[in-house]
Amino acid sequence: MAQIIADRRDIDFVLYEQLNIEQLSKHERFAEFNKKTVDMVVTEARNLAIKEILPTRKIGDEEGCRFEGGKVTVPESFHKVYELFREGEWVAMTEAAEWGGQGMPVSVALAAGEYFNGANYAFVMYPGLTLGAGKLVETFGTEKQKKLYLKKMYTGEWGGTMLLTEPQAGSDVGALTTVAVKNDDGTYSITGNKIFISSGEHDLVENIIHPVLARIEGAPAGTKGISLFLVPKIWVNDDGSFGEFNDVVCTGIEEKMGIHGNATCSLTLGGKGKCRGTLLGQENKGMSAMFLMMNEARLLVGMQGFSCASASYLNALNYARERVQGKNLLLQMSDPTSPSVRIIEHPDVKRQLLTMKAYIEGMRSLLYYVGFCEDKVKITDSAEEKVKYQGMIDVLIPLAKGYVTDRAFDVCSQGIQVYGGYGYIREYPQEQLLRDCRITMIYEGSNGIQAMDLLGRKLRLNGGKAVMDLLGEAQKTIAVAKEIDGLGDLATRLENAVGKLSDVGIRMGKTAMSFKAMNAFAFAYPFMEVCGDVVMAWMLLWRAAVAAPKLEKLVGSNDFWERRAEIEKNKNAAFYEGQLKSAEFFIHSILPITMGKMEAVMDSNSAVVDILDASFGG
Amino acid sequence: MAQIIADRRDIDFVLYEQLNIEQLSKHERFAEFNKKTVDMVVTEARNLAIKEILPTRKIGDEEGCRFEGGKVTVPESFHKVYELFREGEWVAMTEAAEWGGQGMPVSVALAAGEYFNGANYAFVMYPGLTLGAGKLVETFGTEKQKKLYLKKMYTGEWGGTMLLTEPQAGSDVGALTTVAVKNDDGTYSITGNKIFISSGEHDLVENIIHPVLARIEGAPAGTKGISLFLVPKIWVNDDGSFGEFNDVVCTGIEEKMGIHGNATCSLTLGGKGKCRGTLLGQENKGMSAMFLMMNEARLLVGMQGFSCASASYLNALNYARERVQGKNLLLQMSDPTSPSVRIIEHPDVKRQLLTMKAYIEGMRSLLYYVGFCEDKVKITDSAEEKVKYQGMIDVLIPLAKGYVTDRAFDVCSQGIQVYGGYGYIREYPQEQLLRDCRITMIYEGSNGIQAMDLLGRKLRLNGGKAVMDLLGEAQKTIAVAKEIDGLGDLATRLENAVGKLSDVGIRMGKTAMSFKAMNAFAFAYPFMEVCGDVVMAWMLLWRAAVAAPKLEKLVGSNDFWERRAEIEKNKNAAFYEGQLKSAEFFIHSILPITMGKMEAVMDSNSAVVDILDASFGG
Repeated sequence: MAQIIADRRDIDFVLYEQLNIEQLSKHERFAEFNKKTVDMVVTEARNLAIKEILPTRKIGDEEGCRFEGGKVTVPESFHKVYELFREGEWVAMTEAAEWGGQGMPVSVALAAGEYFNGANYAFVMYPGLTLGAGKLVETFGTEKQKKLYLKKMYTGEWGGTMLLTEPQAGSDVGALTTVAVKNDDGTYSITGNKIFISSGEHDLVENIIHPVLARIEGAPAGTKGISLFLVPKIWVNDDGSFGEFNDVVCTGIEEKMGIHGNATCSLTLGGKGKCRGTLLGQENKGMSAMFLMMNEARLLVGMQGFSCASASYLNALNYARERVQGKNLLLQMSDPTSPSVRIIEHPDVKRQLLTMKAYIEGMRSLLYYVGFCEDKVKITDSAEEKVKYQGMIDVLIPLAKGYVTDRAFDVCSQGIQVYGGYGYIREYPQEQLLRDCRITMIYEGSNGIQAMDLLGRKLRLNGGKAVMDLLGEAQKTIAVAKEIDGLGDLATRLENAVGKLSDVGIRMGKTAMSFKAMNAFAFAYPFMEVCGDVVMAWMLLWRAAVAAPKLEKLVGSNDFWERRAEIEKNKNAAFYEGQLKSAEFFIHSILPITMGKMEAVMDSNSAVVDILDASFGG
Repeated sequence: MAQIIADRRDIDFVLYEQLNIEQLSKHERFAEFNKKTVDMVVTEARNLAIKEILPTRKIGDEEGCRFEGGKVTVPESFHKVYELFREGEWVAMTEAAEWGGQGMPVSVALAAGEYFNGANYAFVMYPGLTLGAGKLVETFGTEKQKKLYLKKMYTGEWGGTMLLTEPQAGSDVGALTTVAVKNDDGTYSITGNKIFISSGEHDLVENIIHPVLARIEGAPAGTKGISLFLVPKIWVNDDGSFGEFNDVVCTGIEEKMGIHGNATCSLTLGGKGKCRGTLLGQENKGMSAMFLMMNEARLLVGMQGFSCASASYLNALNYARERVQGKNLLLQMSDPTSPSVRIIEHPDVKRQLLTMKAYIEGMRSLLYYVGFCEDKVKITDSAEEKVKYQGMIDVLIPLAKGYVTDRAFDVCSQGIQVYGGYGYIREYPQEQLLRDCRITMIYEGSNGIQAMDLLGRKLRLNGGKAVMDLLGEAQKTIAVAKEIDGLGDLATRLENAVGKLSDVGIRMGKTAMSFKAMNAFAFAYPFMEVCGDVVMAWMLLWRAAVAAPKLEKLVGSNDFWERRAEIEKNKNAAFYEGQLKSAEFFIHSILPITMGKMEAVMDSNSAVVDILDASFGG
């Protein structure tokens, strides 16, 4: 059961065989992250996740958070785990050592994060939000703000949050009404009501630092008049000592479908007129500050959804390997008394499992690849390369969030289905994974917003060069695969899909800028889906291109049955063979559906735009 | 808010305009069900559902069922509603008056059932299971069994269940181990453990009649040795008086993802060696008895899932009409200060709503059409017609259960997404509808089983004639639509899809009977999906063909904008226009995806069959 959260063999494959992250350690910045160190980091994360965090997942779901008189209590078991998490220095894995971080490559931190999030991401959201808030302080804070808050946050001594949403301002942040008025001492008095604040109030830490989006009195309407403020729960004096409690009151927590272990709070700021904060960054630049942090936050949400799906897949796989039910279809025809078999032997269950497997592997590669590109941006000396990798990251982020969380939810639902009736009951982990996963499609920019971001901004980023760079990388994989025995047909199929996607992208880009923009945006979502599908196929072909030559070295026979017998005996060979099967399955059985969807996007029928409100019925 | 469960205008459209159910009242059997009576039935069901049942949905979810010392308590609010349901004589709508039924056409009962199930199907499952058990008694019972139990069940005075699943026998019913031993008095002593029994024990009724699948001592292994027994909770003497409590003990109820208001019980039979039952039907014919009841049960489950989706759609529609968030895309480009708009004006939200609408309408037509075919079977004097309608029912049932509940779940998830963060919290109905809906994909034959039933049995039913009859009906609709202005292109597209589906069906049928059967069954599921898609497109084109001429009579102008203005002013015109848009959207934007999926099914790549257990990883 040790593999219940994530597949270590596959993580290692992505890190060392697909992405070759060892190359990163050649650069001074990541010099200490050679394979040995990375192995150790991942193993430690895995141990903590499996031994300590995973046992809190179900109990945290059942116990939930409690709210009483403005105080929020997290599930009891979270306290010990939080201390272990802090002691392990897992809060700020990729951040600078000077402020308490570990300076890891993002790709490595993702591997650790996959274990943590898969173990119980409702718990990991406490340090996760702290990290996000800390990044804002690190990036936009004055030296004084950094000195007062940052180390305490990166070490998890204090918590952090993000106060953004208001009842009438969700996807439309620009509609927010929280007001900041400058005081004589340079601080600001802040008044407003914020909702849906993850980790907004809790008893894991002594102090919580709230970055708050608000409008300075007299600032312009919309997003251009929004500033960012730091509002601590307990005021911190210049010498680091605590002042008085700030006027920040938790008025309630939400009862939710899932992530019960994380407190989703409503906070009232300045209800008694006494909420003080300091400006973080420049006046009216709050939104651009948020945008700078957005990629990281969205990648994290993709990882949250994905790690639920990864855990669900492995649970389903273990279940299918143990559960005996029904007979072998072929044997049953000739012999009705043939013995019952494990359900993994039924073709429909295998289809479910291979579907889950292919998506899990494609998504893992995509997420880690984005992290790897971030590492490249950090270490490259070439300005051109920096622009290229940053552009590819920007294009991939809406997929890493929007596409990945959609597919993760589907995988979690399949993970229930494999269990049959047992998937629906709380005794087994599957239904919770689906409930927990569902929010990832909504928060941090709903997936509809991701689709609009991809079509409206990312498609024409750097004059379209960012997308071209990405497709160029896919073409490189295709070229390599074409030269490998047995992959030629798969490569050609993907090449056709990439070609068609280019056409679709050009058409969509033009329409989006025309008077028919509404029509284009009515297809933003399926456009995101076909982009994601093609990226999945690329990632899987890439994996297959890495695996195929290694498999050939391990397996000698060319006879179908002898080959199978050889592969079955060799764990590595079985793994590489699994890579070929994932690519074959996805490209033959999913990509044709994608091609059909591209037809629909190209058609861009106007029914959605034309239909009248009154014609929706109701 | 009166329309919150189901769209009455659309229900009436299907009943009177699409299916013309008034024709049923020309037959003696349904003579009293003229339009006036049907209207009254649906209106009464709607009133009861909205005023009384709907208020118990959320509270029933929160309160759930309680288990203590073998006793199960349902949510408090269910008691009053159950009495109203009984008083209204809603338990046995389609059954014979002589046993307490109402003798309604199935199509009419479905309309009433849509309201009931949409209001709170966890509650409706209590009388629903009773009805199913009653049908078994009516169909297979001796006169004595009928006299003792049936009227009490059809009037809801007593409850009923179905004891089928055992821990090691879920999808594989043949593996069950419950044993029956004949006693000298003709009764049977029954011993075994049954699980996942909906409504298995509760405090709504005095007595519960359990049909139980068990194997008579010495009977053959597998499904051929299974018999059906009636096991009452309290023994009923020949004169109708109560005897002693039977040895049927509830050992627990499941904590589930949803339908918390319905008790899912584990029952131990004969733990003290004193469980008595009587044989229902013939020895060793238990499975065929179950099969005879299966269509009805599966249609009901399709309705359960569908009604959650229908409610979710209407909630999302109302929400999108009220929620103001974000600006009009086009106006914003020229005027950044343009006012915020209702989210129903955003193209991506319209896409979500039109997607939901098209599926809801297609699914409603499909379910009611199946019911209508059942009515036809009952009243036709032509043996040939009887075979034809029964064959079409048999082919459609796996779609009405498997395809419909899959799509219903998707619609429920979209229904969450439209609400954004509010969709994830318990304050709003959307997340519960998704949780409740999820089990419909699993029970009453998991959707994988439905797919195998379609491919393995239904495709070659009556030598393939059943499928041909169904496609023939679709062709009739296509022929009619071709003659209607503006529908020609849609009709041709559907015609192509039907043609391609025929080819796919022939190929799949052949493969399923060959040594490559495993390969065919690996694609049974996508095959079910493309069949369902094509049926959806057919239903929507059928609707459009009915609506288009009526719209032409209501709207005079040919100018695009004048026409819109006219339509907007006329409720009926807006409804008919909505029918055209659903068909246009589905056939242009969904059907191309189906065509791609058919390519994948035709390809029938063997990765699923070939992949080795060891290659799945984990």
